[in-house]
Amino acid sequence: MSKKKNVTFNDIAAYTGFSKTTISRYFNNPDSLTLENQEIIARALRELDYKENKVARILANGKTEFIGVIIPNLMNHYYSEMLNQILLTYEHFGYKFLVFIGNENEDSERRYIQELMSYHIEGLIILSFTIPSRELAALQIPIVTIEREDEYVCSVNTDNYMGGVQATSLLARHNCDVLIHVNSPTAPEIPAYGRIQGFLDVCAERKLKHRVIYKIMGNTFEQMQENLSELLEQLDAEYAGLKKGLFISNDTHANIFINLLIKKYGRLPEDYLIIGFDDSPIARQAAIPISTVGQQIDKIAYEAVSLLVEQMNEQKKRRPEPLKEPVHKVITPILLRRDTTEKTF
Amino acid sequence: MSKKKNVTFNDIAAYTGFSKTTISRYFNNPDSLTLENQEIIARALRELDYKENKVARILANGKTEFIGVIIPNLMNHYYSEMLNQILLTYEHFGYKFLVFIGNENEDSERRYIQELMSYHIEGLIILSFTIPSRELAALQIPIVTIEREDEYVCSVNTDNYMGGVQATSLLARHNCDVLIHVNSPTAPEIPAYGRIQGFLDVCAERKLKHRVIYKIMGNTFEQMQENLSELLEQLDAEYAGLKKGLFISNDTHANIFINLLIKKYGRLPEDYLIIGFDDSPIARQAAIPISTVGQQIDKIAYEAVSLLVEQMNEQKKRRPEPLKEPVHKVITPILLRRDTTEKTF
Repeated sequence: MSKKKNVTFNDIAAYTGFSKTTISRYFNNPDSLTLENQEIIARALRELDYKENKVARILANGKTEFIGVIIPNLMNHYYSEMLNQILLTYEHFGYKFLVFIGNENEDSERRYIQELMSYHIEGLIILSFTIPSRELAALQIPIVTIEREDEYVCSVNTDNYMGGVQATSLLARHNCDVLIHVNSPTAPEIPAYGRIQGFLDVCAERKLKHRVIYKIMGNTFEQMQENLSELLEQLDAEYAGLKKGLFISNDTHANIFINLLIKKYGRLPEDYLIIGFDDSPIARQAAIPISTVGQQIDKIAYEAVSLLVEQMNEQKKRRPEPLKEPVHKVITPILLRRDTTEKTF
Repeated sequence: MSKKKNVTFNDIAAYTGFSKTTISRYFNNPDSLTLENQEIIARALRELDYKENKVARILANGKTEFIGVIIPNLMNHYYSEMLNQILLTYEHFGYKFLVFIGNENEDSERRYIQELMSYHIEGLIILSFTIPSRELAALQIPIVTIEREDEYVCSVNTDNYMGGVQATSLLARHNCDVLIHVNSPTAPEIPAYGRIQGFLDVCAERKLKHRVIYKIMGNTFEQMQENLSELLEQLDAEYAGLKKGLFISNDTHANIFINLLIKKYGRLPEDYLIIGFDDSPIARQAAIPISTVGQQIDKIAYEAVSLLVEQMNEQKKRRPEPLKEPVHKVITPILLRRDTTEKTF
């Protein structure tokens, strides 16, 4: 592979007879040149076969067009689809993404942020949850978080409260004897806590017998299966003969629970109604399609980048006026009624 | 957000009394300075609270530490897990990844490559398949492709032929009356063609009744379901009463087919043995766990980055010796026997 020598500003200056400053102005502030001079330089670029060197441009105007992304993992479909939608915004906004997998390791994530800062990223999208928002805000660059603690930074989240209300109301409409919400222990400052609050509020308002079961399900399929198997035995024992409406906090757990029921009873028993959350592919592709609350991931991603771009554009002004308060946007979820609550089978 | 002024090489030079050239040498070739002078500069950096500016360093030594990645989508689990594993190699190799979603659009992908080149990426990993490898090779930078046509560039692929042999041999061991391989139309120059060749060779060698069915399944769940439903009716009609061994080219299709069988017969009928490919999460998480051929995605990703790093390091030598022939590595797949062939239920 032979290396062709790059055409530099010096070469263009020599070729056109303009000063290097004029060439630089052509790239960074073309309107400051006459149209005629712009055309002379444009022709020279073609004749010299000039390849744009963004790295040089960055040094000239400080705009890298980089956004850093830190995401916990890509195994969870919610995250991989969110990253997919974030990357697709390139077509609209033109920003490039430097992506790191956080793996829930706080120290690694701090290193990644330092690395990103050293590349002069213009903004940061954080989906991982290890670093407190107060610390993120201190980085002094535009930041948007998605579905994590966000007190001191801007964020875009699903309207988790409405999702909880939608799921619980659907179960309530089916006249269950008891409503049960299964979730991991969730702090009230996490957006996903809204699901729990929505469940509790609907149950209280309609005076329904209910219970929230907090359970750590684990990170591997085997751990989840073991913990959900335990849960199934518990529910079968404590609520025998009752019609149970289960709101499970995500579709992966809901699917495993349903498969355990099928394994035990040969089918989904009629005293179990189940709804998940997220609308993961598994919810639609399961042998018994799973009712769920769908997150509008495309909208969340677009709004997150859009909110970041607004802040980044402000930073480029001569006298930037930073936001006085962090902006928090919420996106409406969509209820999807499928076989695990509608029982047409 | 107030902007702290960045400490420049000029500031460090003034502070230490060294020339700017000496400061630059400290960053790019520290061994050319005495240990004592290195320590003086290091102390000055701490005292001045110097933040490393990689963009400036890139201009100095030409090393961006960027690898470009173009991936068709992240909806398919195979791709999202591959990207996950590629990004995780940062911990080992230190390279940063600029990622684009290709969406099977040839023109977009060409634009993305130009954009990446303008940022002086050191190498490129291509999973998308729209741009011929001859055109990629002409870019004159280190490239590694994964599971696509790769005649003129380096690649890392699953040993698809062995995967086809493993899947077919497992079905053959169960004494099926007919072996059927279902796949999309696949050109022989695509690595995945090996699955078809492996199937054909095992059937020919063992003189087994067999058939390859080429069918375009579509990109949406609904299209796949419709096409697989058609396939099911066809097989039920043409092979009634025969024990059918089906090797389906991916787990998503296998799962949909199995769910259609369950919907039609209330269970997986005994005259159907089914094996998929990939070991997607759906294969393990399905109501009836699906036998499959697992790709070692972590190994493929690591080998791909490793092969790229070798080439990039060669490029940094004073007299780089480029590869005479593209290197093609293959990674062994792993047979996973689950309920859809082992029928313990």
